Amino acid sequence: MDLSRSPLLTDLYQLNMIQAYLEHGKTETAVFEFFVRKLPRGREFLVAAGLEQALDFLENLRFPQEDIDWLRRTGRFSENFISRLEDFRFTGDVYAMPEGTVFFPNEPILRVVAPLPEAQLVESRLINILHFQTLIASKAARHVLLVPGKQLVDFGLRRAHGAEAGVMAARASYIAGYAGTATMSAGELFGIPIFGTMAHSFIQAFDDEISAFEAFAESRPEGLVLLIDTYDTEAAAKKVVALAPKLAARGIRIHGVRLDSGDLVALSKSVRQILDEGGLQDVTIFASGGIDEAELKEFRDTKAPIDGFGIGTSLTTSYDVPALDCAYKLQEYAGVARRKRSAGKATWPGRKQVWRSYDTNGRMAGDVLSLETDNQPGERLIHQVMKGGRRMGPSPSLDEVRNHAAKNLAQLPEPFRQLDPNADYPVEIGATLLQLTKEVDRHLAQLEEAAK
Amino acid sequence: MDLSRSPLLTDLYQLNMIQAYLEHGKTETAVFEFFVRKLPRGREFLVAAGLEQALDFLENLRFPQEDIDWLRRTGRFSENFISRLEDFRFTGDVYAMPEGTVFFPNEPILRVVAPLPEAQLVESRLINILHFQTLIASKAARHVLLVPGKQLVDFGLRRAHGAEAGVMAARASYIAGYAGTATMSAGELFGIPIFGTMAHSFIQAFDDEISAFEAFAESRPEGLVLLIDTYDTEAAAKKVVALAPKLAARGIRIHGVRLDSGDLVALSKSVRQILDEGGLQDVTIFASGGIDEAELKEFRDTKAPIDGFGIGTSLTTSYDVPALDCAYKLQEYAGVARRKRSAGKATWPGRKQVWRSYDTNGRMAGDVLSLETDNQPGERLIHQVMKGGRRMGPSPSLDEVRNHAAKNLAQLPEPFRQLDPNADYPVEIGATLLQLTKEVDRHLAQLEEAAK
Repeated sequence: MDLSRSPLLTDLYQLNMIQAYLEHGKTETAVFEFFVRKLPRGREFLVAAGLEQALDFLENLRFPQEDIDWLRRTGRFSENFISRLEDFRFTGDVYAMPEGTVFFPNEPILRVVAPLPEAQLVESRLINILHFQTLIASKAARHVLLVPGKQLVDFGLRRAHGAEAGVMAARASYIAGYAGTATMSAGELFGIPIFGTMAHSFIQAFDDEISAFEAFAESRPEGLVLLIDTYDTEAAAKKVVALAPKLAARGIRIHGVRLDSGDLVALSKSVRQILDEGGLQDVTIFASGGIDEAELKEFRDTKAPIDGFGIGTSLTTSYDVPALDCAYKLQEYAGVARRKRSAGKATWPGRKQVWRSYDTNGRMAGDVLSLETDNQPGERLIHQVMKGGRRMGPSPSLDEVRNHAAKNLAQLPEPFRQLDPNADYPVEIGATLLQLTKEVDRHLAQLEEAAK
Repeated sequence: MDLSRSPLLTDLYQLNMIQAYLEHGKTETAVFEFFVRKLPRGREFLVAAGLEQALDFLENLRFPQEDIDWLRRTGRFSENFISRLEDFRFTGDVYAMPEGTVFFPNEPILRVVAPLPEAQLVESRLINILHFQTLIASKAARHVLLVPGKQLVDFGLRRAHGAEAGVMAARASYIAGYAGTATMSAGELFGIPIFGTMAHSFIQAFDDEISAFEAFAESRPEGLVLLIDTYDTEAAAKKVVALAPKLAARGIRIHGVRLDSGDLVALSKSVRQILDEGGLQDVTIFASGGIDEAELKEFRDTKAPIDGFGIGTSLTTSYDVPALDCAYKLQEYAGVARRKRSAGKATWPGRKQVWRSYDTNGRMAGDVLSLETDNQPGERLIHQVMKGGRRMGPSPSLDEVRNHAAKNLAQLPEPFRQLDPNADYPVEIGATLLQLTKEVDRHLAQLEEAAK
């Protein structure tokens, strides 16, 4: 069973509501938008990702017979409702920011315009898809900005939250500028470059370290990276120096060494010295093991001679911020703007657009969030991508998305590129949006008054 | 494509190593164990989960032709190696703690005994499966212990890290004692009870709140729960009181109301009063919206009249601790015990067992971790579950697993049941394990000396 496209990746209440919508003729056009409410501490900007999988989900949404049968067996739904699910399709329009776009709180990155029951059914899975990849792309971008020019590789499948999280974290981090991933299926599914060295178990399976190095070199001569911290890192670096000419005589070049534990700053310096003194100036040092932003900053500030990093748990779980405060909210129904006013969760009503301005250096200078009919100066960030349930054209390739993200990250004002926690990006609310919000509130107050 | 069983849910280095193992005849029996190295702050015990999916993965491991073709196209592997993958099967034995068992650091919850290449290939995905469900079951158990007798429901699909995380979090939290989940596919896949109310968008799609309540009640009369915080919670509670006799006249009973924002302690008290004064003493109050341990403690300590909780992000991402420091490590190869000694990551060698003792009240009194051949007093926690790549019998049902977890949680010493951060459970290392560790170190030192 391919869970990723299941229409039952939804909450029970969605189906309860849809049944009620259908029974009460509430099938007019609804407009929902997906946005992040506020930035958590440790994030000054976000990077949109996951649109490709969201569109794939919408375009292929069907209720397989087994799901229909199961729904019937639950006894929770009317036969009329269940029979209508049999030819259920998503027929709506979708507007979105391209993947890889930098964005800020309250700016929608996706808008769904569809009959209310359709727009409601897809809520849970759309959030599930967009939230996770955006979370990871936003985290990965911070690593990329911290150590420009260094090779960053996703090592996080094992502690990612499940299979899909593993491959989607590889995709999202590649979009944000990672060089690639260790995860084979991410390579297979998305064509992401794959990287790999060797594990401690390989070393331990041999009676001594140098036999393990030799055996591995013979079998895996290309891009050969030897793991040198299983027993004594500096002693192992000396073994690498001793082994290099022996391997060279057989045409095998040692590409790099990997450090996975201990004081990586001190070890990278001593290992660099051992390698250099042994004539192995071109052998690179790759580091892994519990690396996150603090460690990358330390490596940068201490000029640790590390050429690349394998980053696992901190990346694929977004360890410091494992979820964003995001929402997919009804902004208009049957032509009338709507708004949620719950404490701390109020939303901006209507169909919105984001206009972005740039300064003379091409850096982002500020955004305006307003109604899409409001004509603001600047670049429109939201574009239509799906019409009547069908994508409007081929999606950009993953490398195009990655280039778009790189361009966006380069356009960030310098304090954001330095991950300055005091950086505050101006997002202005357009006058027509403020006006509409007031009108919706007034209208709601009148209705509430009338209902009393 | 069913990603969940893909053999390419592995790291590139596993395949690099396997190719080298095969070329160097390193195919003897390896013993790997999965364990958690240490408890993070905020966890005093863990609950094992995920074994069922781990065994399913091992039992069904095959390389589909498309994967073989893709591996060939990468140009990274020898033809001899690739052709051997075509009839690759997992043929090993597995020993494990039953799902739902409470465990502590260094205690293996799974042991794989298999030819080295097989045991190595499955590392990444086995960790991926066991880590996540154990993470979530361990988190959910804390919620369960905090509010005994209250109904806890998983609301977390939308912010779970992908589709698999969504359904597996539902499974793991149900094991730990949650009443059920809102996620339909988790109901379909595992038979977990499903729960659902209504969303703010439903209210907003109607011109006024009371029309929305009525429409929903007509379409979804069973277990009817009305969401009352969209505009003004107390005003909505009064509307519920006014609506109740009207609905009762049509045979519809309001089961409960849901609060999703604001000061839940104060609101639950005022709403309870409004309902009680309106004769609705039997209408329950269900709360959701950013609830985690601190909130549950507050509700308990302030005696907030809340009957059940929908818990999302904090549960399904294990927000405070989104990953455990776990490992799957080689403990023996070709009959010789092995050990990793890297700084901060040293492991206990050999095939291990955990013996658990109980006090006269049936509460857990302490564990002994030692070699499985060491005969210790107490209950053995690790049992063989797979032989030659096949499960040894039918798996326990999910409800049996859940009962086992409930029994284990009831047996926890009281400080652990109170989530006392100073609680410290005694895990003694057996004398034969200490002895073996010394021998392995001495042996490694001799080999290293000889290799110089």
